[in-house]
Amino acid sequence: MSPEVTSGRGRFITLEGGEGVGKSTNLGFVVDFLRGQGIEVVQTREPGGTPRAEAIREQLLAHHQEPLDSDAELLLVFAARAQHLARRIVPALERGAWVVSDRFTDATFAYQGGGRGIDVQRIAQLEKFVQRGLTPDLTLLLDMPLDAAEQRLAGRLDRKGETRDRFEQEQRDFFERVRDAYLARAADDPQRMAIIDASGSLDDVQARITQQLHMRMTQWA
Amino acid sequence: MSPEVTSGRGRFITLEGGEGVGKSTNLGFVVDFLRGQGIEVVQTREPGGTPRAEAIREQLLAHHQEPLDSDAELLLVFAARAQHLARRIVPALERGAWVVSDRFTDATFAYQGGGRGIDVQRIAQLEKFVQRGLTPDLTLLLDMPLDAAEQRLAGRLDRKGETRDRFEQEQRDFFERVRDAYLARAADDPQRMAIIDASGSLDDVQARITQQLHMRMTQWA
Repeated sequence: MSPEVTSGRGRFITLEGGEGVGKSTNLGFVVDFLRGQGIEVVQTREPGGTPRAEAIREQLLAHHQEPLDSDAELLLVFAARAQHLARRIVPALERGAWVVSDRFTDATFAYQGGGRGIDVQRIAQLEKFVQRGLTPDLTLLLDMPLDAAEQRLAGRLDRKGETRDRFEQEQRDFFERVRDAYLARAADDPQRMAIIDASGSLDDVQARITQQLHMRMTQWA
Repeated sequence: MSPEVTSGRGRFITLEGGEGVGKSTNLGFVVDFLRGQGIEVVQTREPGGTPRAEAIREQLLAHHQEPLDSDAELLLVFAARAQHLARRIVPALERGAWVVSDRFTDATFAYQGGGRGIDVQRIAQLEKFVQRGLTPDLTLLLDMPLDAAEQRLAGRLDRKGETRDRFEQEQRDFFERVRDAYLARAADDPQRMAIIDASGSLDDVQARITQQLHMRMTQWA
Protein backbone atom coordinates (compact mmCIF):
# COMPACT_ATOMS: atom_id res chain seq x y z
CA MET A 1 0.00 0.00 0.00
CA SER A 2 1.24 3.44 -0.80
CA PRO A 3 1.19 6.05 1.98
CA GLU A 4 -1.10 8.07 -0.28
CA VAL A 5 -3.85 5.52 0.04
CA THR A 6 -3.38 4.52 3.67
CA SER A 7 -3.17 8.13 4.82
CA GLY A 8 -6.05 9.39 2.66
CA ARG A 9 -9.65 8.37 2.33
CA GLY A 10 -10.29 4.66 2.85
CA ARG A 11 -11.66 2.28 0.25
CA PHE A 12 -15.19 0.96 0.19
CA ILE A 13 -15.52 -2.71 -0.80
CA THR A 14 -18.80 -4.62 -1.00
CA LEU A 15 -19.55 -8.32 -1.37
CA GLU A 16 -22.63 -9.32 -3.27
CA GLY A 17 -24.28 -12.53 -4.41
CA GLY A 18 -27.33 -14.71 -3.96
CA GLU A 19 -28.06 -17.20 -1.19
CA GLY A 20 -25.61 -20.08 -0.78
CA VAL A 21 -22.68 -18.60 -2.73
CA GLY A 22 -20.42 -18.48 0.35
CA LYS A 23 -20.68 -14.74 0.94
CA SER A 24 -20.24 -14.82 4.73
CA THR A 25 -17.18 -17.06 4.65
CA ASN A 26 -15.53 -15.01 1.96
CA LEU A 27 -16.40 -11.73 3.66
CA GLY A 28 -14.32 -12.86 6.64
CA PHE A 29 -11.53 -13.84 4.26
CA VAL A 30 -11.48 -10.38 2.62
CA VAL A 31 -11.42 -8.65 6.00
CA ASP A 32 -8.59 -10.87 7.28
CA PHE A 33 -6.64 -10.39 4.07
CA LEU A 34 -6.83 -6.59 4.30
CA ARG A 35 -6.00 -6.55 8.00
CA GLY A 36 -3.00 -8.72 7.17
CA GLN A 37 -1.85 -5.84 4.97
CA GLY A 38 -1.99 -3.51 7.97
CA ILE A 39 -5.20 -1.80 6.89
CA GLU A 40 -7.84 -0.72 9.44
CA VAL A 41 -11.03 -2.43 8.31
CA VAL A 42 -14.63 -1.79 9.38
CA GLN A 43 -16.72 -4.88 8.65
CA THR A 44 -20.42 -4.24 8.24
CA ARG A 45 -23.57 -5.41 6.50
CA GLU A 46 -26.78 -4.27 4.84
CA PRO A 47 -29.53 -3.76 5.52
CA GLY A 48 -28.23 -2.67 8.91
CA GLY A 49 -24.77 -1.73 10.10
CA THR A 50 -25.83 0.55 12.98
CA PRO A 51 -28.34 -0.10 15.80
CA ARG A 52 -30.95 2.18 14.20
CA ALA A 53 -30.39 0.69 10.75
CA GLU A 54 -30.61 -2.83 12.21
CA ALA A 55 -33.99 -1.88 13.73
CA ILE A 56 -35.14 -0.90 10.23
CA ARG A 57 -33.74 -4.22 8.92
CA GLU A 58 -35.96 -6.06 11.41
CA GLN A 59 -39.01 -4.28 10.04
CA LEU A 60 -38.04 -5.34 6.52
CA LEU A 61 -37.52 -9.00 7.38
CA ALA A 62 -40.41 -9.40 9.84
CA HIS A 63 -43.33 -11.58 8.92
CA HIS A 64 -46.43 -9.43 9.17
CA GLN A 65 -50.11 -9.83 8.43
CA GLU A 66 -50.06 -6.50 6.62
CA PRO A 67 -48.24 -6.75 3.27
CA LEU A 68 -45.43 -4.23 2.87
CA ASP A 69 -46.05 -1.83 -0.01
CA SER A 70 -43.21 -1.90 -2.53
CA ASP A 71 -42.55 1.86 -2.24
CA ALA A 72 -42.51 1.56 1.56
CA GLU A 73 -40.07 -1.34 1.27
CA LEU A 74 -37.71 0.64 -0.96
CA LEU A 75 -37.89 3.69 1.29
CA LEU A 76 -37.11 1.58 4.36
CA VAL A 77 -34.14 -0.02 2.58
CA PHE A 78 -32.77 3.41 1.69
CA ALA A 79 -33.58 4.86 5.14
CA ALA A 80 -31.39 2.13 6.65
CA ARG A 81 -28.75 2.88 4.00
CA ALA A 82 -28.77 6.63 4.69
CA GLN A 83 -28.30 5.95 8.38
CA HIS A 84 -25.53 3.41 7.69
CA LEU A 85 -23.73 5.82 5.37
CA ALA A 86 -24.01 8.83 7.69
CA ARG A 87 -23.20 7.13 10.97
CA ARG A 88 -20.74 4.40 9.97
CA ILE A 89 -19.49 4.14 6.39
CA VAL A 90 -18.62 7.75 5.57
CA PRO A 91 -16.99 8.52 8.97
CA ALA A 92 -14.84 5.39 8.62
CA LEU A 93 -13.77 6.22 5.06
CA GLU A 94 -13.01 9.80 6.06
CA ARG A 95 -10.64 8.78 8.82
CA GLY A 96 -8.86 6.47 6.36
CA ALA A 97 -10.34 3.12 7.39
CA TRP A 98 -11.53 0.71 4.73
CA VAL A 99 -15.11 -0.50 4.85
CA VAL A 100 -16.09 -4.02 3.81
CA SER A 101 -19.84 -4.49 3.61
CA ASP A 102 -21.89 -7.64 3.21
CA ARG A 103 -24.22 -6.22 0.55
CA PHE A 104 -25.07 -2.68 -0.52
CA THR A 105 -27.18 -1.05 -3.25
CA ASP A 106 -26.50 -3.73 -5.89
CA ALA A 107 -28.51 -6.05 -3.63
CA THR A 108 -31.47 -3.64 -3.85
CA PHE A 109 -31.32 -3.74 -7.63
CA ALA A 110 -30.97 -7.55 -7.56
CA TYR A 111 -33.55 -8.45 -4.89
CA GLN A 112 -36.13 -5.67 -5.02
CA GLY A 113 -35.56 -4.90 -8.71
CA GLY A 114 -34.75 -8.24 -10.36
CA GLY A 115 -36.33 -10.53 -7.80
CA ARG A 116 -39.46 -8.65 -6.81
CA GLY A 117 -39.96 -6.71 -10.03
CA ILE A 118 -39.90 -3.20 -8.52
CA ASP A 119 -39.21 -0.58 -11.20
CA VAL A 120 -35.42 -0.15 -11.32
CA GLN A 121 -35.83 3.51 -12.29
CA ARG A 122 -37.40 4.09 -8.88
CA ILE A 123 -34.52 2.31 -7.18
CA ALA A 124 -32.08 4.46 -9.17
CA GLN A 125 -33.89 7.62 -8.03
CA LEU A 126 -33.46 6.72 -4.37
CA GLU A 127 -29.86 5.61 -4.95
CA LYS A 128 -29.10 9.07 -6.31
CA PHE A 129 -31.06 10.74 -3.50
CA VAL A 130 -29.26 8.92 -0.70
CA GLN A 131 -25.75 8.29 -2.05
CA ARG A 132 -25.18 11.57 -3.89
CA GLY A 133 -22.59 9.88 -6.10
CA LEU A 134 -20.89 7.73 -3.46
CA THR A 135 -20.45 4.17 -4.73
CA PRO A 136 -18.20 1.28 -3.68
CA ASP A 137 -14.65 1.34 -5.03
CA LEU A 138 -14.86 -2.39 -5.63
CA THR A 139 -17.72 -4.87 -5.56
CA LEU A 140 -16.94 -8.58 -5.51
CA LEU A 141 -19.91 -10.43 -7.00
CA LEU A 142 -19.78 -14.07 -5.92
CA ASP A 143 -21.53 -16.02 -8.62
CA MET A 144 -22.36 -19.65 -9.19
CA PRO A 145 -25.08 -21.62 -10.97
CA LEU A 146 -28.31 -21.81 -8.97
CA ASP A 147 -28.22 -25.59 -8.55
CA ALA A 148 -24.87 -25.48 -6.78
CA ALA A 149 -25.96 -22.59 -4.56
CA GLU A 150 -29.17 -24.39 -3.61
CA GLN A 151 -27.23 -27.52 -2.62
CA ARG A 152 -25.01 -25.44 -0.36
CA LEU A 153 -27.96 -23.62 1.12
CA ALA A 154 -29.87 -26.86 1.75
CA GLY A 155 -26.83 -28.30 3.54
CA ARG A 156 -26.51 -25.19 5.67
CA LEU A 157 -30.17 -25.19 6.61
CA ASP A 158 -30.06 -28.89 7.57
CA ARG A 159 -26.92 -28.40 9.58
CA LYS A 160 -27.95 -25.35 11.55
CA GLY A 161 -31.70 -25.97 11.67
CA GLU A 162 -32.19 -22.34 10.60
CA THR A 163 -35.61 -21.07 9.70
CA ARG A 164 -35.87 -19.26 6.40
CA ASP A 165 -36.77 -15.55 6.56
CA ARG A 166 -39.18 -13.78 4.22
CA PHE A 167 -36.64 -13.35 1.45
CA GLU A 168 -35.30 -16.92 1.74
CA GLN A 169 -38.78 -18.35 1.31
CA GLU A 170 -39.08 -16.89 -2.15
CA GLN A 171 -39.12 -19.32 -5.02
CA ARG A 172 -36.40 -20.59 -7.32
CA ASP A 173 -37.39 -18.36 -10.23
CA PHE A 174 -36.97 -15.42 -7.87
CA PHE A 175 -33.34 -16.42 -7.30
CA GLU A 176 -32.79 -16.82 -11.03
CA ARG A 177 -33.98 -13.25 -11.52
CA VAL A 178 -31.73 -12.08 -8.69
CA ARG A 179 -28.71 -13.74 -10.26
CA ASP A 180 -29.55 -12.35 -13.71
CA ALA A 181 -29.92 -8.84 -12.26
CA TYR A 182 -26.57 -9.09 -10.47
CA LEU A 183 -24.83 -10.27 -13.64
CA ALA A 184 -26.44 -7.49 -15.67
CA ARG A 185 -25.22 -4.89 -13.14
CA ALA A 186 -21.70 -6.32 -13.35
CA ALA A 187 -21.81 -6.23 -17.14
CA ASP A 188 -22.87 -2.58 -17.02
CA ASP A 189 -20.15 -1.54 -14.57
CA PRO A 190 -17.11 -3.84 -15.04
CA GLN A 191 -14.76 -1.18 -13.70
CA ARG A 192 -16.32 -1.39 -10.25
CA MET A 193 -17.79 -4.91 -10.18
CA ALA A 194 -15.68 -8.05 -10.40
CA ILE A 195 -17.50 -11.33 -10.98
CA ILE A 196 -15.90 -14.05 -8.85
CA ASP A 197 -16.62 -17.63 -9.85
CA ALA A 198 -17.81 -18.97 -6.49
CA SER A 199 -18.02 -22.63 -7.54
CA GLY A 200 -15.23 -25.10 -6.84
CA SER A 201 -13.20 -25.41 -3.65
CA LEU A 202 -12.95 -22.64 -1.09
CA ASP A 203 -9.22 -22.40 -1.80
CA ASP A 204 -9.92 -21.83 -5.48
CA VAL A 205 -12.51 -19.13 -4.75
CA GLN A 206 -10.25 -17.35 -2.29
CA ALA A 207 -7.36 -17.46 -4.74
CA ARG A 208 -9.61 -15.63 -7.21
CA ILE A 209 -10.58 -13.07 -4.58
CA THR A 210 -6.93 -12.52 -3.59
CA GLN A 211 -6.02 -11.97 -7.22
CA GLN A 212 -8.75 -9.33 -7.58
CA LEU A 213 -7.74 -7.55 -4.39
CA HIS A 214 -4.06 -7.49 -5.39
CA MET A 215 -4.96 -6.13 -8.81
CA ARG A 216 -7.19 -3.36 -7.44
CA MET A 217 -4.79 -2.38 -4.69
CA THR A 218 -2.03 -2.03 -7.26
CA GLN A 219 -4.32 0.23 -9.33
CA TRP A 220 -5.19 2.32 -6.27
CA ALA A 221 -1.59 2.61 -5.03
CA MET B 1 -74.06 16.04 -0.99
CA SER B 2 -74.70 15.24 -4.62
CA PRO B 3 -74.91 11.58 -5.67
CA GLU B 4 -71.94 12.29 -7.93
CA VAL B 5 -69.65 12.83 -4.98
CA THR B 6 -71.00 10.22 -2.60
CA SER B 7 -71.02 7.49 -5.25
CA GLY B 8 -67.60 8.41 -6.70
CA ARG B 9 -64.16 8.71 -5.24
CA GLY B 10 -64.08 9.93 -1.63
CA ARG B 11 -62.52 13.18 -0.45
CA PHE B 12 -59.25 13.42 1.40
CA ILE B 13 -59.20 15.99 4.21
CA THR B 14 -56.21 16.65 6.46
CA LEU B 15 -55.86 18.66 9.67
CA GLU B 16 -52.60 20.43 10.32
CA GLY B 17 -51.16 22.74 12.94
CA GLY B 18 -48.55 23.01 15.67
CA GLU B 19 -48.75 21.70 19.21
CA GLY B 20 -51.58 23.01 21.40
CA VAL B 21 -53.84 24.36 18.64
CA GLY B 22 -56.65 21.90 19.43
CA LYS B 23 -56.05 19.58 16.51
CA SER B 24 -57.26 16.37 18.18
CA THR B 25 -60.51 17.89 19.48
CA ASN B 26 -61.31 19.45 16.14
CA LEU B 27 -60.39 16.30 14.23
CA GLY B 28 -63.16 14.52 16.12
CA PHE B 29 -65.48 17.39 15.33
CA VAL B 30 -64.79 17.18 11.57
CA VAL B 31 -65.31 13.40 11.56
CA ASP B 32 -68.60 13.71 13.48
CA PHE B 33 -69.78 16.52 11.23
CA LEU B 34 -69.16 14.47 8.07
CA ARG B 35 -70.73 11.33 9.51
CA GLY B 36 -73.73 13.47 10.41
CA GLN B 37 -74.05 14.16 6.67
CA GLY B 38 -74.23 10.41 6.01
CA ILE B 39 -70.67 10.14 4.72
CA GLU B 40 -68.51 7.08 5.46
CA VAL B 41 -65.38 8.49 7.11
CA VAL B 42 -62.04 6.81 7.78
CA GLN B 43 -60.25 8.66 10.59
CA THR B 44 -56.48 8.24 10.60
CA ARG B 45 -53.22 9.93 11.49
CA GLU B 46 -49.62 10.43 10.41
CA PRO B 47 -47.02 9.26 10.85
CA GLY B 48 -48.83 5.94 11.17
CA GLY B 49 -52.31 4.90 10.16
CA THR B 50 -51.61 1.17 9.69
CA PRO B 51 -49.84 -1.28 12.02
CA ARG B 52 -46.69 -1.30 9.87
CA ALA B 53 -46.71 2.49 9.50
CA GLU B 54 -47.24 2.86 13.27
CA ALA B 55 -44.15 0.68 13.82
CA ILE B 56 -42.18 3.10 11.63
CA ARG B 57 -43.67 6.00 13.63
CA GLU B 58 -42.28 4.43 16.81
CA GLN B 59 -38.80 4.40 15.29
CA LEU B 60 -39.17 8.08 14.43
CA LEU B 61 -40.31 9.14 17.90
CA ALA B 62 -38.06 6.85 19.95
CA HIS B 63 -35.30 8.34 22.02
CA HIS B 64 -32.07 6.70 20.88
CA GLN B 65 -28.40 7.08 21.67
CA GLU B 66 -27.65 7.08 17.96
CA PRO B 67 -28.77 10.34 16.31
CA LEU B 68 -31.10 9.83 13.36
CA ASP B 69 -29.59 11.11 10.10
CA SER B 70 -31.86 13.69 8.43
CA ASP B 71 -32.08 11.72 5.18
CA ALA B 72 -32.93 8.58 7.13
CA GLU B 73 -35.61 10.50 9.03
CA LEU B 74 -37.19 11.79 5.81
CA LEU B 75 -37.09 8.36 4.20
CA LEU B 76 -38.76 6.79 7.26
CA VAL B 77 -41.46 9.47 7.24
CA PHE B 78 -42.19 8.77 3.58
CA ALA B 79 -41.94 4.99 4.02
CA ALA B 80 -44.71 5.24 6.63
CA ARG B 81 -46.65 7.52 4.26
CA ALA B 82 -46.27 5.12 1.30
CA GLN B 83 -47.60 2.28 3.45
CA HIS B 84 -50.46 4.44 4.76
CA LEU B 85 -51.43 5.53 1.25
CA ALA B 86 -51.24 2.05 -0.27
CA ARG B 87 -52.94 0.11 2.52
CA ARG B 88 -55.45 2.59 3.93
CA ILE B 89 -55.96 5.98 2.29
CA VAL B 90 -56.18 5.06 -1.40
CA PRO B 91 -58.36 1.94 -0.89
CA ALA B 92 -60.77 4.01 1.25
CA LEU B 93 -60.97 6.84 -1.30
CA GLU B 94 -61.46 4.35 -4.12
CA ARG B 95 -64.47 2.72 -2.49
CA GLY B 96 -65.98 6.19 -1.95
CA ALA B 97 -65.18 6.73 1.73
CA TRP B 98 -63.77 10.03 2.89
CA VAL B 99 -60.48 10.07 4.73
CA VAL B 100 -59.75 12.54 7.53
CA SER B 101 -56.12 12.46 8.61
CA ASP B 102 -54.43 14.06 11.61
CA ARG B 103 -51.45 15.44 9.66
CA PHE B 104 -49.98 14.55 6.28
CA THR B 105 -47.17 15.89 4.08
CA ASP B 106 -47.63 19.55 5.09
CA ALA B 107 -46.41 18.44 8.54
CA THR B 108 -43.21 17.12 6.96
CA PHE B 109 -42.59 20.48 5.31
CA ALA B 110 -43.41 22.28 8.58
CA TYR B 111 -41.57 20.06 11.10
CA GLN B 112 -38.68 18.54 9.16
CA GLY B 113 -38.38 21.44 6.71
CA GLY B 114 -39.24 24.57 8.70
CA GLY B 115 -38.53 23.24 12.17
CA ARG B 116 -35.46 21.10 11.62
CA GLY B 117 -34.08 22.90 8.60
CA ILE B 118 -34.01 19.93 6.22
CA ASP B 119 -33.79 21.09 2.60
CA VAL B 120 -37.39 21.45 1.38
CA GLN B 121 -36.33 20.51 -2.15
CA ARG B 122 -35.43 17.07 -0.79
CA ILE B 123 -38.81 16.80 0.92
CA ALA B 124 -40.49 17.80 -2.34
CA GLN B 125 -38.56 15.08 -4.21
CA LEU B 126 -39.86 12.38 -1.88
CA GLU B 127 -43.38 13.86 -1.91
CA LYS B 128 -43.40 13.49 -5.68
CA PHE B 129 -41.87 10.01 -5.48
CA VAL B 130 -44.42 8.67 -3.00
CA GLN B 131 -47.63 10.55 -3.80
CA ARG B 132 -47.39 10.68 -7.60
CA GLY B 133 -49.65 13.71 -7.63
CA LEU B 134 -52.13 12.64 -4.95
CA THR B 135 -52.74 15.51 -2.50
CA PRO B 136 -55.50 16.25 0.01
CA ASP B 137 -58.68 17.83 -1.39
CA LEU B 138 -58.80 20.11 1.63
CA THR B 139 -56.36 20.89 4.42
CA LEU B 140 -57.58 22.71 7.51
CA LEU B 141 -54.62 24.53 9.05
CA LEU B 142 -55.42 25.34 12.68
CA ASP B 143 -53.41 28.40 13.53
CA MET B 144 -52.94 30.55 16.59
CA PRO B 145 -50.19 32.71 18.08
CA LEU B 146 -47.50 30.66 19.78
CA ASP B 147 -48.16 32.10 23.27
CA ALA B 148 -51.76 30.92 23.25
CA ALA B 149 -50.80 27.48 21.96
CA GLU B 150 -48.12 27.12 24.63
CA GLN B 151 -50.60 27.97 27.37
CA ARG B 152 -52.97 25.31 26.11
CA LEU B 153 -50.18 22.78 25.81
CA ALA B 154 -48.90 23.53 29.32
CA GLY B 155 -52.41 23.05 30.70
CA ARG B 156 -52.76 19.75 28.89
CA LEU B 157 -49.40 18.47 30.10
CA ASP B 158 -50.21 19.39 33.69
CA ARG B 159 -53.62 17.82 33.45
CA LYS B 160 -52.62 14.53 31.89
CA GLY B 161 -49.11 14.23 33.26
CA GLU B 162 -47.93 13.37 29.75
CA THR B 163 -44.27 13.10 28.94
CA ARG B 164 -43.08 15.09 25.96
CA ASP B 165 -41.76 13.08 23.01
CA ARG B 166 -38.70 13.95 20.94
CA PHE B 167 -40.52 16.51 18.79
CA GLU B 168 -42.33 18.10 21.71
CA GLN B 169 -39.07 18.75 23.55
CA GLU B 170 -37.84 21.07 20.82
CA GLN B 171 -37.52 24.69 21.68
CA ARG B 172 -39.83 27.62 21.16
CA ASP B 173 -37.99 28.95 18.11
CA PHE B 174 -38.50 25.56 16.55
CA PHE B 175 -42.27 25.99 16.90
CA GLU B 176 -42.08 29.49 15.48
CA ARG B 177 -40.39 28.07 12.39
CA VAL B 178 -43.01 25.32 12.18
CA ARG B 179 -45.82 27.88 12.31
CA ASP B 180 -44.14 30.07 9.70
CA ALA B 181 -43.63 27.11 7.38
CA TYR B 182 -47.28 26.08 7.71
CA LEU B 183 -48.46 29.62 6.96
CA ALA B 184 -46.14 29.85 3.96
CA ARG B 185 -47.51 26.58 2.58
CA ALA B 186 -51.06 27.87 3.01
CA ALA B 187 -50.17 31.12 1.23
CA ASP B 188 -48.71 29.11 -1.68
CA ASP B 189 -51.72 26.83 -2.03
CA PRO B 190 -54.85 28.70 -0.88
CA GLN B 191 -57.08 26.56 -3.08
CA ARG B 192 -56.31 23.46 -1.01
CA MET B 193 -55.35 24.91 2.38
CA ALA B 194 -57.74 26.88 4.58
CA ILE B 195 -56.26 28.73 7.54
CA ILE B 196 -58.60 28.35 10.52
CA ASP B 197 -58.14 30.85 13.35
CA ALA B 198 -57.85 28.43 16.27
CA SER B 199 -57.89 31.05 19.03
CA GLY B 200 -61.05 31.95 20.91
CA SER B 201 -63.71 29.59 22.18
CA LEU B 202 -64.12 26.06 20.85
CA ASP B 203 -67.58 27.03 19.56
CA ASP B 204 -66.06 29.87 17.55
CA VAL B 205 -63.37 27.63 16.07
CA GLN B 206 -65.84 24.92 15.18
CA ALA B 207 -68.14 27.46 13.57
CA ARG B 208 -65.22 28.47 11.33
CA ILE B 209 -64.52 24.82 10.49
CA THR B 210 -68.18 24.15 9.71
CA GLN B 211 -68.25 27.17 7.41
CA GLN B 212 -65.19 25.90 5.51
CA LEU B 213 -66.62 22.38 5.19
CA HIS B 214 -69.97 23.68 3.91
CA MET B 215 -68.22 25.90 1.40
CA ARG B 216 -65.99 23.11 0.07
CA MET B 217 -68.77 20.54 -0.04
CA THR B 218 -70.84 22.94 -2.07
CA GLN B 219 -67.93 23.39 -4.48
CA TRP B 220 -67.46 19.62 -4.77
CA ALA B 221 -71.15 18.85 -5.21
